[in-house]
Amino acid sequence: MQNWLLPEYIQDMLPDEASRVEQMRRQWLDLLRQSGYQLVAPPLLEYAESLLLDDSADMDLRTFKLVDQLSGRTLALRADITPQVARMDAHLLNRKGVARLCYAGSVLHTQPVGLTRTRELLQIGAELYGYAGLQGDIEIQQLMLASLRLLGIEDVHLDLGHVGVFRALVSHAGIDKALESALFAALQSKDSTALQALVLDLEESTQTALLALPTLYGECSEVLARAYDILPNTPDILAALADLAKVSAQLQVDSLGIDLADLRGYHYHSGMVFAAYHAGSHDAIALGGRYDDLGKSFGRARPATGFSMDLRQLYRLLPPQSTSQGICAPFVNDPTLDSKIAQLRAVGEVVVVDLLGDPACWAELQCDRELVLHEGTWQVIAVM
Amino acid sequence: MQNWLLPEYIQDMLPDEASRVEQMRRQWLDLLRQSGYQLVAPPLLEYAESLLLDDSADMDLRTFKLVDQLSGRTLALRADITPQVARMDAHLLNRKGVARLCYAGSVLHTQPVGLTRTRELLQIGAELYGYAGLQGDIEIQQLMLASLRLLGIEDVHLDLGHVGVFRALVSHAGIDKALESALFAALQSKDSTALQALVLDLEESTQTALLALPTLYGECSEVLARAYDILPNTPDILAALADLAKVSAQLQVDSLGIDLADLRGYHYHSGMVFAAYHAGSHDAIALGGRYDDLGKSFGRARPATGFSMDLRQLYRLLPPQSTSQGICAPFVNDPTLDSKIAQLRAVGEVVVVDLLGDPACWAELQCDRELVLHEGTWQVIAVM
Repeated sequence: MQNWLLPEYIQDMLPDEASRVEQMRRQWLDLLRQSGYQLVAPPLLEYAESLLLDDSADMDLRTFKLVDQLSGRTLALRADITPQVARMDAHLLNRKGVARLCYAGSVLHTQPVGLTRTRELLQIGAELYGYAGLQGDIEIQQLMLASLRLLGIEDVHLDLGHVGVFRALVSHAGIDKALESALFAALQSKDSTALQALVLDLEESTQTALLALPTLYGECSEVLARAYDILPNTPDILAALADLAKVSAQLQVDSLGIDLADLRGYHYHSGMVFAAYHAGSHDAIALGGRYDDLGKSFGRARPATGFSMDLRQLYRLLPPQSTSQGICAPFVNDPTLDSKIAQLRAVGEVVVVDLLGDPACWAELQCDRELVLHEGTWQVIAVM
Repeated sequence: MQNWLLPEYIQDMLPDEASRVEQMRRQWLDLLRQSGYQLVAPPLLEYAESLLLDDSADMDLRTFKLVDQLSGRTLALRADITPQVARMDAHLLNRKGVARLCYAGSVLHTQPVGLTRTRELLQIGAELYGYAGLQGDIEIQQLMLASLRLLGIEDVHLDLGHVGVFRALVSHAGIDKALESALFAALQSKDSTALQALVLDLEESTQTALLALPTLYGECSEVLARAYDILPNTPDILAALADLAKVSAQLQVDSLGIDLADLRGYHYHSGMVFAAYHAGSHDAIALGGRYDDLGKSFGRARPATGFSMDLRQLYRLLPPQSTSQGICAPFVNDPTLDSKIAQLRAVGEVVVVDLLGDPACWAELQCDRELVLHEGTWQVIAVM
C-alpha cells in the first residue's frame, strides 16, 4: 500500500502555490473589507438538510454525507458556501437593512467539477442582502470584475443571463414541476433535440420562445433585439430584458455578452445571473446571480445577490512567479547575530538559519543573500 | 425542522470573530514566513490509511470516515495536519537538508475535544524536518512561545516532557506491546490504581520508575533532581534528562515546568514533548514535540519536531476588541464621489455605500464617519 498516494482529483498545495494563493486571498479579502463586506466563516459541515435546500439532485450527488456519532443524523460536507451565508443573514445577523458579507473557505465535491478536475475548491465569494434594486446586481458584478483584475486575471469575458425569462415562460404556460425540471436540464445542457421533444404539447408562442432560448446568446444589443422580437411581451420578460440592457450599458469589461439559456445548476437563482470566462479555462472562472428566495427556507426571504470563484482555479491561470529569496544566517551562538536576525525579520525579511551548514543543501534554503561577520558587525551581502 | 440549527459543537464565525481570527492568522503566517518556514496546504480529506498511521484507537474514533464514490475506498477527514506535512516532507519535497514547513487549516473531530467543546478547529502549526539536534527542539519551542506572544496570549506556562524516558523503561524491561499500551493509557490519564495493577509482575526497579513517573512533575530543577534519583541510570534516560535540563535553562517563558508522565495521545512522538497552558483554558493551548519516526510510514524517516495550536481556541482567550468603524457614503450617481470612494479604499479605509439611505438602519452600517458634499467637494466628517 503506497499510503502517500492522494485520492483522485485531490491535490496538495506545495510552498510556491500555497504562498501565492495566500497572497491572493489577502489581497482579495482587503478589497472586500474596504468595500464594506464583512467576513464570515460558516462551518465545513452541517446537517444535510441545511445544506441541501432545494430539490437539486445534482447538488445532492455532489455532496459528501457522513453520520454524526453524537446525534445519529446525516451530516454533509459543504459543496457550496452561499446557502450557509444566506442562513447567517436570515437567522443570525437579522439585520433590517443591507448586509454585505464575504467568505473564503474550502468546499468539497464527491466528483470533480467540469474540466478543472478537482474535488477540493478554495471558494471565495461575496453576498449582498436586503437590496432588491438593480444597483445591487451592478455592485456585485463590478466587485467580481474588480476582484479578477486585482488577482491578475486579464482578458475576461462576462456573460449576463436572467433566470426570470425562463421562469416567466414556465409560469405563464402553467408548466408543471416535472416538465419544468426536464426543460431546465435540456436548456442547461443546450440539448436542442431533448428540448424539441419536451415542448411538443405546449402552445406555439411558448414553444417558439423556449426553442429560441438556446440561440439567444452573443453580443448584447444584437441578442436583446432578437429577444424583444421572439419572446412574449409580458411585463416580467420586458423587465428582465430592460435590466439586461441597463447593466450591459454600465459594466466595464474586456468583452461582454448575453446568454439567455444560462440558468445555472444550483436551482436557487431567481433573477439576473452572470458568469466570467477566460481563454485559459473551459469552465467559467467566476459565477454569480440573484437568489431572492434562498433565505425563505431559514424563515426569512431577503433580496440577495452574490458571486463566487475558486482561488485555486484562478491561481492556475496566472503566469508563474519567481519565488522570493531569503537571507541565510549561519548557526552560531552569538547574541549580536540573534538581534540582527530579529531586526531583519521585523522589517519583513525572510531569514533562514542554516542549522546543518552543509554546502550540498544550500540551494534548498532558497536564499540570495547571507549574513556574514565583517569587521565585527553582522552584514547582509549578496551570494555570489 | 429548524434547518438553521447547527450540529452540536459546530459553530459559525460571525464578522467580529472571523475578522479577528483572519488578522491573527496573517500575523502568525508572517512571523513563520520571516522565520524561514514555508507554507503548505494539504487537502481536507485523504485515504483513511494515509491519515491513521499508527494503531491509535483514540485517533481512529475521532476521525470522520466516508466512502469515495470514485474508488470505493474509505476516505477520512483530517483530524490532525502533522501526518500530512510529514508525508509532504517524506515524499513530495524530498529535501536532503532541513525543511521548515508551516500550515493553517481546518481539522474536524467526531467528538468535541476536551473542554473546548468544539469539533472544528482552525489548526496552525510548524514542523522542522532533517535536524536531530537539540537546537531543533529549542527553535520550535521558542517559535511556539513567540507565536503565543505575537497573538496576544500572556502569562503562559510551559510544561516539558520526554517520551524517551517511558520508551527506555519499556524497552529495557522487555515489556510487550499490549502491556506497553495499557501502561501508556494509565500514565496518560494519571490513573495510579491501574498503574499499580499493571506493574505487579515487573522487576522492582522498573516498578519504582513507572510508579514514580506520574509524580515527576513540577518546578524543573526539583523534578530533575528527583528523576536522577529515582529513574535507572541508563544512557538513554540520562540523555533525556540532560536535554530537559539544557532546554529548561534556555527557554524564556513566564512559567516553566517538567511533566514526565505527559506522553500525548497521538502515539507518534519519540523525544522531547511540550505543552503550553493558560489560566483561561483547562486544556493545553499549544502542543508539540519530536516525532522522528512518522515519515517512515511514507518511505523516509527523518528527524522531526513541531508544534500546533487552534486559532479559534486562542481567540476565545483574548479580551474583546472594539470593531473598527468605516466611512458611510451616500448612494448618489456622481463620478467625483466614486473616485473619492476609490481613493479612500486604496489607502485601506472601509467605505460602505448606504444603498437604502434609511436612518433606521444606520447603526448597522458600523460607520463613525461619513462622506458629505461640502462647497463642491466630497469630504469625510465625523458622525455626530
